[in-house]
Amino acid sequence: MIDTIKWIGGSGNAPASQVMILDQRLLPHTVSYVECTDYRQVVDCIKTLAIRGAPAIGIAAAMGIALAASAISASDVKEFSSRLSTAIDDFLNSRPTAVNIQWAAERIERLIETNKHLPVSAIKDMIAKEGVIILNEDIEINKAIGRVGADLIKDGATVLTHCNAGALATGGYGTATAPIRTAIAQGKRVLVIADETRPILQGARLTAWELMQDNIPVTLIADNAAGELMRRGEIDLCIVGTDRTAKNGDVANKIGTYSVAVLAKEHNIPFYVAAPLSSIDFKIERGDDIPIEERPSHEVTNVFGRCEIAPKGVKVINRAFDITPAKYVTLILTEKGAFRPEDIHKLDPKGKTQ
Amino acid sequence: MIDTIKWIGGSGNAPASQVMILDQRLLPHTVSYVECTDYRQVVDCIKTLAIRGAPAIGIAAAMGIALAASAISASDVKEFSSRLSTAIDDFLNSRPTAVNIQWAAERIERLIETNKHLPVSAIKDMIAKEGVIILNEDIEINKAIGRVGADLIKDGATVLTHCNAGALATGGYGTATAPIRTAIAQGKRVLVIADETRPILQGARLTAWELMQDNIPVTLIADNAAGELMRRGEIDLCIVGTDRTAKNGDVANKIGTYSVAVLAKEHNIPFYVAAPLSSIDFKIERGDDIPIEERPSHEVTNVFGRCEIAPKGVKVINRAFDITPAKYVTLILTEKGAFRPEDIHKLDPKGKTQ
Repeated sequence: MIDTIKWIGGSGNAPASQVMILDQRLLPHTVSYVECTDYRQVVDCIKTLAIRGAPAIGIAAAMGIALAASAISASDVKEFSSRLSTAIDDFLNSRPTAVNIQWAAERIERLIETNKHLPVSAIKDMIAKEGVIILNEDIEINKAIGRVGADLIKDGATVLTHCNAGALATGGYGTATAPIRTAIAQGKRVLVIADETRPILQGARLTAWELMQDNIPVTLIADNAAGELMRRGEIDLCIVGTDRTAKNGDVANKIGTYSVAVLAKEHNIPFYVAAPLSSIDFKIERGDDIPIEERPSHEVTNVFGRCEIAPKGVKVINRAFDITPAKYVTLILTEKGAFRPEDIHKLDPKGKTQ
Repeated sequence: MIDTIKWIGGSGNAPASQVMILDQRLLPHTVSYVECTDYRQVVDCIKTLAIRGAPAIGIAAAMGIALAASAISASDVKEFSSRLSTAIDDFLNSRPTAVNIQWAAERIERLIETNKHLPVSAIKDMIAKEGVIILNEDIEINKAIGRVGADLIKDGATVLTHCNAGALATGGYGTATAPIRTAIAQGKRVLVIADETRPILQGARLTAWELMQDNIPVTLIADNAAGELMRRGEIDLCIVGTDRTAKNGDVANKIGTYSVAVLAKEHNIPFYVAAPLSSIDFKIERGDDIPIEERPSHEVTNVFGRCEIAPKGVKVINRAFDITPAKYVTLILTEKGAFRPEDIHKLDPKGKTQ
């Protein structure tokens, strides 16, 4: 599978460090990387969806913060920390819904705090390594989610997924695609139905593409077709990812996820959410407290900046995410196992109920 | 409101008759008519969606059959009828789901049967007039649906509609839009939420456009956003059209209608179907007996023949319609009044229960 994001470390007299980001705006037509040497390029990649997907933008933020760190000349850790906070804030403000950016930033802040007795240069090295560690951990976490979720997929199953919570949304292997990949590795036959996922078409452009790259059978549908497929008994289960899941099991994910969940419930089809712990926000009590990003109307009215599909000046609502209340979620699949949504608070590292 | 379809009659030494069809493939960017002088051009317009919408293609079929009739040289009505049947079959085979083509064809066949004692030239004139009569009746029927449906729309209501069952889908005024137009004429404030309606984007291209032309407030959303709007309480009612409604009240309509209906039920939002009697098929017992048209995959993978949005060779399911079982339908709005779906069989002109 192609790399979503890569760190190319500079050291000594070598060129400066780089974050290489697969430009997902150009997929499926062109495979091309944005070479970021300044953290602001990484912020821009996140804002403009060159890289997207909660785990992937968490990794991008970590690596971007490392780029920012490498460019700071500071005489002590306090000054270094203070100057780095500008970059961290830029990442935190880049996309509001996914919690993974915040998760990555807090992880780096903890790393600095723990090692504040060390020289700034050593801390910079540790931050650079941390981005790569997060990337590698992410792939292992996804494989663990795959093992947890594969048991829920029977041989011959048809799985609906929405948006892209695949390898391209993560360090690799994917979250929602992980159980599918693992089930196939176990020898099961699995057919994936990919919702095209308007307005940004992550299903058509990314999920269909990455599964075809790996010879996983995939059929593309307009989002509107999911209900009829379920009514006809042509979907066995749904697996989606999440940008942020609240402590009560309410799930924020790509707009349209909620519709899939309601349809799944109506047809007694299991609806699973693949959620690495990094995407569960135990500080948020319920879904409606999760900030929902509103994006520009041209994403709806114009496809790829080339095809105007609506009358000039039409008013648009373009919320990028929706909330699926916990009651629609059959199980949340994490690297620690599968949990009913009402039980995930038990995973809270700071929780009393753990 | 702009004309969807017009008949320009030829007579004596004047030029041949024409059917002028607004080319909806070019909307909202270009307002242009296809000038049809041969019935096969009308068939092509129906197949390629230059004209679409169940009532509108019924009118187009009637006018197209009249064009075919005008071109037939036949010495007697039997020969005339036999030669006309080729054209009628071409229309019947053009699009399978909407019943209105069949309805229009049967109406013309009855007209010929009733008047078979008259000269062929007189029958040709009657057929030419019949197309115009059907067009004018359609507008009156829609206004009647408007009066029936307007009572269900409160001042300040937000109405979701899917696809285009507006003036452009009919002879004028629209079916699903009729209650909205009438409510506004009564002085009520109404906001329309238009689903964009992938893959053909009738909501974005047609509904938003025609409502903006008439200064009716409209907001465009990706189909995926309907569920979240309902969850937040931002939709008061749904009104859609139908391509064919079965005797038991099951509704065939544009793909995605069923999803809207399920979502509406989940949120206790009324879901109304505007159905002129011409779109109710009393010969079909239930929705799953309605033939569902499957259309080419490029409609999903390519926007306007210009923007490829999916990987080359991806497999696609592109059913153009879905079935909304009667249990999801609050009321069916006809020119004869509003009926619970289980009661529409009472409207069957051949029914014993009428």
